[in-house]
Amino acid sequence: MSTQDERARQQLIDLAAEFYDQFARGEVPEMTLPTRTKSNIEYDEESGVWVYGDRTSTRSANSVRGARKLLKATYTIDFLARQLEEGRSSTLRELYYLSESWDAEEAAFSDQDESNQLIEDLEIVSEVTREDFHMRPEESGATLMGPLELREQTRRGEREIHCQEDVGEGGYQIPNNPDTIDFLDHDVDFILCVETGGMRDRLVENGFDTDYNALVVHLKGQPARATRRITKRLHDELGLPVVVFTDGDPWSYRIYGSVAYGSIKSAHLSEYLATPEAEFVGIQPEDIVEYDLPTDPLADSDVNALESELEDPRFMTDYWEEQIELQLDIGKKAEQQALASRGLDFVTDEYLPTRLDEMGVL
Amino acid sequence: MSTQDERARQQLIDLAAEFYDQFARGEVPEMTLPTRTKSNIEYDEESGVWVYGDRTSTRSANSVRGARKLLKATYTIDFLARQLEEGRSSTLRELYYLSESWDAEEAAFSDQDESNQLIEDLEIVSEVTREDFHMRPEESGATLMGPLELREQTRRGEREIHCQEDVGEGGYQIPNNPDTIDFLDHDVDFILCVETGGMRDRLVENGFDTDYNALVVHLKGQPARATRRITKRLHDELGLPVVVFTDGDPWSYRIYGSVAYGSIKSAHLSEYLATPEAEFVGIQPEDIVEYDLPTDPLADSDVNALESELEDPRFMTDYWEEQIELQLDIGKKAEQQALASRGLDFVTDEYLPTRLDEMGVL
Repeated sequence: MSTQDERARQQLIDLAAEFYDQFARGEVPEMTLPTRTKSNIEYDEESGVWVYGDRTSTRSANSVRGARKLLKATYTIDFLARQLEEGRSSTLRELYYLSESWDAEEAAFSDQDESNQLIEDLEIVSEVTREDFHMRPEESGATLMGPLELREQTRRGEREIHCQEDVGEGGYQIPNNPDTIDFLDHDVDFILCVETGGMRDRLVENGFDTDYNALVVHLKGQPARATRRITKRLHDELGLPVVVFTDGDPWSYRIYGSVAYGSIKSAHLSEYLATPEAEFVGIQPEDIVEYDLPTDPLADSDVNALESELEDPRFMTDYWEEQIELQLDIGKKAEQQALASRGLDFVTDEYLPTRLDEMGVL
Repeated sequence: MSTQDERARQQLIDLAAEFYDQFARGEVPEMTLPTRTKSNIEYDEESGVWVYGDRTSTRSANSVRGARKLLKATYTIDFLARQLEEGRSSTLRELYYLSESWDAEEAAFSDQDESNQLIEDLEIVSEVTREDFHMRPEESGATLMGPLELREQTRRGEREIHCQEDVGEGGYQIPNNPDTIDFLDHDVDFILCVETGGMRDRLVENGFDTDYNALVVHLKGQPARATRRITKRLHDELGLPVVVFTDGDPWSYRIYGSVAYGSIKSAHLSEYLATPEAEFVGIQPEDIVEYDLPTDPLADSDVNALESELEDPRFMTDYWEEQIELQLDIGKKAEQQALASRGLDFVTDEYLPTRLDEMGVL
């Protein structure tokens, strides 16, 4: 076992040992967790990310339901500890199905929400990430393209890969756990996270990554944890600026938000996943007006989402208030690829250089 | 321009020339297309795929609406011919937005369905695929993992990649146009197409590709054209059997169907995309019973989809009728990952070897 695996295993065993000690002391076993709601997240000045506040909830064995929850937790801990010993991994869905084979029938999960939630609880209490439990996500990570050379530790040995010279046009596929990667060498000036595949391909075809020494990260819509994690590591370890380029609508601002601020659901992981220094390139509502982009009208659900963002502490900055109010005012949204209405090269010859210069990235 | 690009360009120019000739002869220009409905697809004995039948529809300039359609077609042909000359490419969405910049305002598409449909019409009439027009899809292709060495012709030169030794755990990312790939060398015994990411990762973690010389193709749900195209080429050019492994529900049988039979929407491309020899591994309704897998009950929409499959000429075989009737009878469906209820290694130690042996693949 690696030191990291050994540590993860130990944290899990300690948790189970605590239930044991509680029993031994004649106490009803319980597990205390931060309350995971929007009203219990707060800005942590030091790390610059949003984390859970002080409110907590307790899972206690003083009811049949609570006792069953702790039984499931111990079975899951046992499974995870063995998985780490054997150097194996599994998906959240496999865990749910596996629980049907456990000898205590009452330990089987009734649905996958329950097992997913338990894994998140264990992440929070043990301070070990799901990736370090060797739990793989269903969603796959995205791809990288740019002047970066890395080493990935795979089950089949080490692979050294240059993310331009050793990959096809599809780029380098980020593995489920990007902490198996070491960065070896690079000529990257900044990280450009891109929402859509069409725009990612446009940038690569136009050679934006070579012309501007950009590392293009394809977010594929709402980014997977692996994508957010590698973005954060590229920022922290290589000291590179991160910019996010999405469609111009409220759902895309949330994509930016998940890269920069983390999500409510995974606020316990903000320090592991979020890159608070990440900046938003666009499409800004301002761009829709300035470049007279082809648009669609805002639907009711878009308007509601924008209004909810105005009340979200993570979007309470002058910049976002101004942009969101402008968008509500013009009643329109636009896609990244709408820039093609000014020609296929407009995005790489004009739009991005201008925006990145304004932002001080170029 | 490559010979292939030159040929594609010529086919397009010929189309436009035909409109010109029709005008010159004093005829109203028109374009004739096969009718694209379920009732107009038929089985082609020779190629073993489903293609359009004899019924046709005509787009004529004898109405303002029809004339506008042909105007849009000529502008699009002009754009595509220039794109091929310049060795560039674009996405379907970019085409839609680009049309706003054309000098004839009436040539602009009113929505993306219209431009998508036109590109499909041009594919059918010119007998050139969208990929050969250099139109990229939005959806990205999937990944390959297995003992295959290939050469990809990228804009940045040739890349030789071994799909186990030169890639990370994420595998080799299939480019948008897999016809840029040459197969160099391989130790592959069969192609295993897998629906879900969780199962793809399980097979790779358990070393199924190395133990059984399998090339694992991740379909990512309904497979992109690039994924179906490379599967077909692997079958045809390397003479390798193709098997498809999905969840056990009607939507997954359609995924198998799109690999094996092609789709109604793209019946003009069946010979380019479909692998009629592809066989279905499972999850079969029979497996649900035999292995007592964890299941979900069939929803009404599942039942309707199964009944519609019973009436679909592509599923009218003894095998499918038996399996679908069994499923309607037991009223249950199961996922690939439900095999984990018998342990994480059951799928690679037991299920797949047994099934592949029965099917004569091993």
